[in-house]
Amino acid sequence: SCRHVTNISSAEAMNTCYIASTYSTYSMEEIVAAAPGGFRWFQLYIHQNRRLSEQLVQRAEALGFQALVLTVDVPYGGKRRVDIHNNFQLPPHMEVENFRGSIEVGAVERCMVTPEGWARAPCPSKNDRSEYGLPAHSFDPSVCWDDIYWLRSLTHLPIIVKGILTQEDADLAMKHGVQGIIVSNHGGRQLDSTPATINALIEIKETVQDRIEVYVDGGIRTGSDVLKALALGAKYVFIGRPTLWGLAYKGEEGLREVLQILKDEFHLSMALAGCKKVSEIGRHLVQFSRL
Amino acid sequence: SCRHVTNISSAEAMNTCYIASTYSTYSMEEIVAAAPGGFRWFQLYIHQNRRLSEQLVQRAEALGFQALVLTVDVPYGGKRRVDIHNNFQLPPHMEVENFRGSIEVGAVERCMVTPEGWARAPCPSKNDRSEYGLPAHSFDPSVCWDDIYWLRSLTHLPIIVKGILTQEDADLAMKHGVQGIIVSNHGGRQLDSTPATINALIEIKETVQDRIEVYVDGGIRTGSDVLKALALGAKYVFIGRPTLWGLAYKGEEGLREVLQILKDEFHLSMALAGCKKVSEIGRHLVQFSRL
Amino acid sequence: SCRHVTNISSAEAMNTCYIASTYSTYSMEEIVAAAPGGFRWFQLYIHQNRRLSEQLVQRAEALGFQALVLTVDVPYGGKRRVDIHNNFQLPPHMEVENFRGSIEVGAVERCMVTPEGWARAPCPSKNDRSEYGLPAHSFDPSVCWDDIYWLRSLTHLPIIVKGILTQEDADLAMKHGVQGIIVSNHGGRQLDSTPATINALIEIKETVQDRIEVYVDGGIRTGSDVLKALALGAKYVFIGRPTLWGLAYKGEEGLREVLQILKDEFHLSMALAGCKKVSEIGRHLVQFSRL
Amino acid sequence: SCRHVTNISSAEAMNTCYIASTYSTYSMEEIVAAAPGGFRWFQLYIHQNRRLSEQLVQRAEALGFQALVLTVDVPYGGKRRVDIHNNFQLPPHMEVENFRGSIEVGAVERCMVTPEGWARAPCPSKNDRSEYGLPAHSFDPSVCWDDIYWLRSLTHLPIIVKGILTQEDADLAMKHGVQGIIVSNHGGRQLDSTPATINALIEIKETVQDRIEVYVDGGIRTGSDVLKALALGAKYVFIGRPTLWGLAYKGEEGLREVLQILKDEFHLSMALAGCKKVSEIGRHLVQFSRL
Repeated sequence: SCRHVTNISSAEAMNTCYIASTYSTYSMEEIVAAAPGGFRWFQLYIHQNRRLSEQLVQRAEALGFQALVLTVDVPYGGKRRVDIHNNFQLPPHMEVENFRGSIEVGAVERCMVTPEGWARAPCPSKNDRSEYGLPAHSFDPSVCWDDIYWLRSLTHLPIIVKGILTQEDADLAMKHGVQGIIVSNHGGRQLDSTPATINALIEIKETVQDRIEVYVDGGIRTGSDVLKALALGAKYVFIGRPTLWGLAYKGEEGLREVLQILKDEFHLSMALAGCKKVSEIGRHLVQFSRL
Repeated sequence: SCRHVTNISSAEAMNTCYIASTYSTYSMEEIVAAAPGGFRWFQLYIHQNRRLSEQLVQRAEALGFQALVLTVDVPYGGKRRVDIHNNFQLPPHMEVENFRGSIEVGAVERCMVTPEGWARAPCPSKNDRSEYGLPAHSFDPSVCWDDIYWLRSLTHLPIIVKGILTQEDADLAMKHGVQGIIVSNHGGRQLDSTPATINALIEIKETVQDRIEVYVDGGIRTGSDVLKALALGAKYVFIGRPTLWGLAYKGEEGLREVLQILKDEFHLSMALAGCKKVSEIGRHLVQFSRL
Repeated sequence: SCRHVTNISSAEAMNTCYIASTYSTYSMEEIVAAAPGGFRWFQLYIHQNRRLSEQLVQRAEALGFQALVLTVDVPYGGKRRVDIHNNFQLPPHMEVENFRGSIEVGAVERCMVTPEGWARAPCPSKNDRSEYGLPAHSFDPSVCWDDIYWLRSLTHLPIIVKGILTQEDADLAMKHGVQGIIVSNHGGRQLDSTPATINALIEIKETVQDRIEVYVDGGIRTGSDVLKALALGAKYVFIGRPTLWGLAYKGEEGLREVLQILKDEFHLSMALAGCKKVSEIGRHLVQFSRL
Repeated sequence: SCRHVTNISSAEAMNTCYIASTYSTYSMEEIVAAAPGGFRWFQLYIHQNRRLSEQLVQRAEALGFQALVLTVDVPYGGKRRVDIHNNFQLPPHMEVENFRGSIEVGAVERCMVTPEGWARAPCPSKNDRSEYGLPAHSFDPSVCWDDIYWLRSLTHLPIIVKGILTQEDADLAMKHGVQGIIVSNHGGRQLDSTPATINALIEIKETVQDRIEVYVDGGIRTGSDVLKALALGAKYVFIGRPTLWGLAYKGEEGLREVLQILKDEFHLSMALAGCKKVSEIGRHLVQFSRL
């Protein structure tokens, strides 16, 4: 097949955790086939039709994904001015694959936020690609903390929430029994003026301590960024844009090069900071501004 | 008529408060005719001939304006270097309309500030357009806090003072019985180095609490700016330049688009910050710099 | 005569204090003749030949200068990289006039600073123009606090020290009986990384209080700069570069325009800050950074 | 010979301390011959073959170097993106001279850092110039504090550690008996985001006090930089890049000019800061940011 599932196979080859999105242009099954032994998590966006989400969770567990990552910062798509400026559209030959054949057609309503609360409006047709080619109802804005219990009832997989930026939300996440937190501001693409995740990580780690694992994404560009994130308490870091840069530069080979560069730089930074093992990395490595 | 009163009709259509200026190039009557059901306030600049101001206040109340906004930061026009550089003049076909027929002609004096206090100098003729086309004596530099009582004696409308930047002045405003405060630095055009209004808002809200309503203008450019202002205690925000950008781009249609963009962005920002209702917006949304 | 003494006559016309330098290209006598009624101080650079300085002080007093300004931050000329880059030389038709006929010729020594202290080296000849055309020995690096007493013995004029930047030096100046302090870093041209004078003013005013008058120069470019300096305790502000800009633009007319602009802007800034008189200007006008 | 040992002879001529590197392209013997009376230290990079390092230490002592500078921040070469971008290679006519004839040839292993600790990998051949033309095994990443004792057993020279950036490491260095510390981040070329040495100097001087001498390099570009470093407690400052600029501009003459400029500027800055002797320079000269 000429359809390469580049990211996951590169991640497998590099012994790296890969988070497959609900809205991937490859299906879960294709992803697993491309990297059967890979370390992979499934990132769930809860659909307004909850039945569809239930099916996804069950497929993910059956396919051997090792954790469920629940996206909690996308009740709606953010206003991405660059995408608007560039008139971004999913290219015609690409489609969201996980829902192939299962999206309902017909007149449905759509949740909208108003100053007075949620309202419902007639929904654009299934073919409306206005939101980056995603099918209508892809995001359920009514997701709330109790939905963690609903997810828990569906799967034995660890549940990790992605998109936490404050101590208060980290406390709520722990109270609702999640197994991990990804500190994330969605690459800065959801809401203007959110805190930098490296700062939010500090605050969140203070409350979480070692009770559950904390991860971070956003702004990781060099190996010394990885070192800083680990020093501030992240168990893993995740990257987005650098993978795209590698792919744009030279496809799968470019992506592997990006991963290799980050790995090498991280090891070198660790050594130059005087750490022989990851376990020696600690907050003492970071000097906060005297300001 | 080919004279469109774009701002007020757009504001009415968008369910937005419109503040009509004393020195509008449309008369109060034209403004009301263009948007009879609109939510509108009248912004008073006190004239050196107080009788003229009294007539304006009475016309505003009779025409159904819902509040009187007293401008308190323009004893003199500021030094606007860009206007000087561009040799700005009110275009010849435009005129300040509210005083048509009522401006006195003749030799009068003009107040001037000196290091020793106020002085009086011969006044340039009525036709002098040096101050942006405003008639001579448009600004009375002797306005002081007791003039709030004078205004109170003229009208039953709520009195809102516009141009407050400090806690001390906010306390004085409340002491003199105003119903509201617009935190404003006149778009930064009156005096170099005034504080940013978003900062002044914080200070002022601390002293005012919920005793009277506090509003803010200056620097509101996106929906997340609106969210921040409301989070810091503003009841409303007002905009100036963005309306001009919309008008310059596409007249009334452009202006409506600007208002719609801000409204949509605000609702989206609110939702992404986790607020279902405006009443859920609060200071907890704002993280102050660790510096 | 075609030799115009522009600065002093403009200063007189504008009712402004003029500080005439020891190394002016006009003699004291010419300056007084150009503006007999002007408010003027004489700025003394102490010469290595103290007799020359004594003569200057006596001439200044006899000519009606109202104060003696002692420059204390020029034991040596600073390293002015821009002057070096531009290969600046006093134009051949200009000369330092105050010493005409009185500079000694012959082999003298020159003080030089070394890590071990002062040393003496053979002096370049009188014709050496390497230091901006100043005669050799123009600056006496051995000037110390006790020289205030020496100056006091020579004249009844008030003694004002120019070039103070710290609380410690302000205290020493008062202890040695000076009548005033000009907070100055010589326009930033003497030593890299000196504090901004507006900051030094705050510190110095704290220790001096109202015991003697404190003035400031450096960085005054607009009327709101004047307002800030007065608000922070300066009795007068002095300017340097803006006068040169005015002169370069249009000679004496340009200089008068610069002075007029600053005066008008200052009065307007004062009014817009709510001050009717200079005596109402105070530290409450300045809001320090929350950082 | 047409091979000039420019740096050391200039340093001697200027009465400046010269630190000769293990990986100089001139041998120790050549350096001493070029400046027999110079003030010089030998900078040791510990080789994986410790016998080679022992020989170097003994040669340095025998040749009259006055101190041994142990580089402690190069377990591996840093990732120097500019060098990679420029494809930097030691020019073919230049070679590291100190090891001429003594580097072992053959299959050896190389230390590499991994997340789990040190590992060994087959070593590239002696001819591999990938690391700036240095022979393989040039850096021994296993160097640790106890190696100070090993060095102490080899030589009577004072041992100075170069590359200290924290109070903790300064304390360890003193505990292991070093005679001096060079605060250094290797010109910022080893690891991203290291502290500026001028800041690290403050912290380190606080713990070291006057028990051993503290030096600094990094960022010294002007005489006022020298003054600041001394004011904050450095006994000497060292420079790197400015010497290269001088050499690139005009060889030995350019280098001497750079040294002379720094010396002159330092003396002038000292005088303008009010210090007659180096012993009068102190922390009181530095005003820390009010932020």
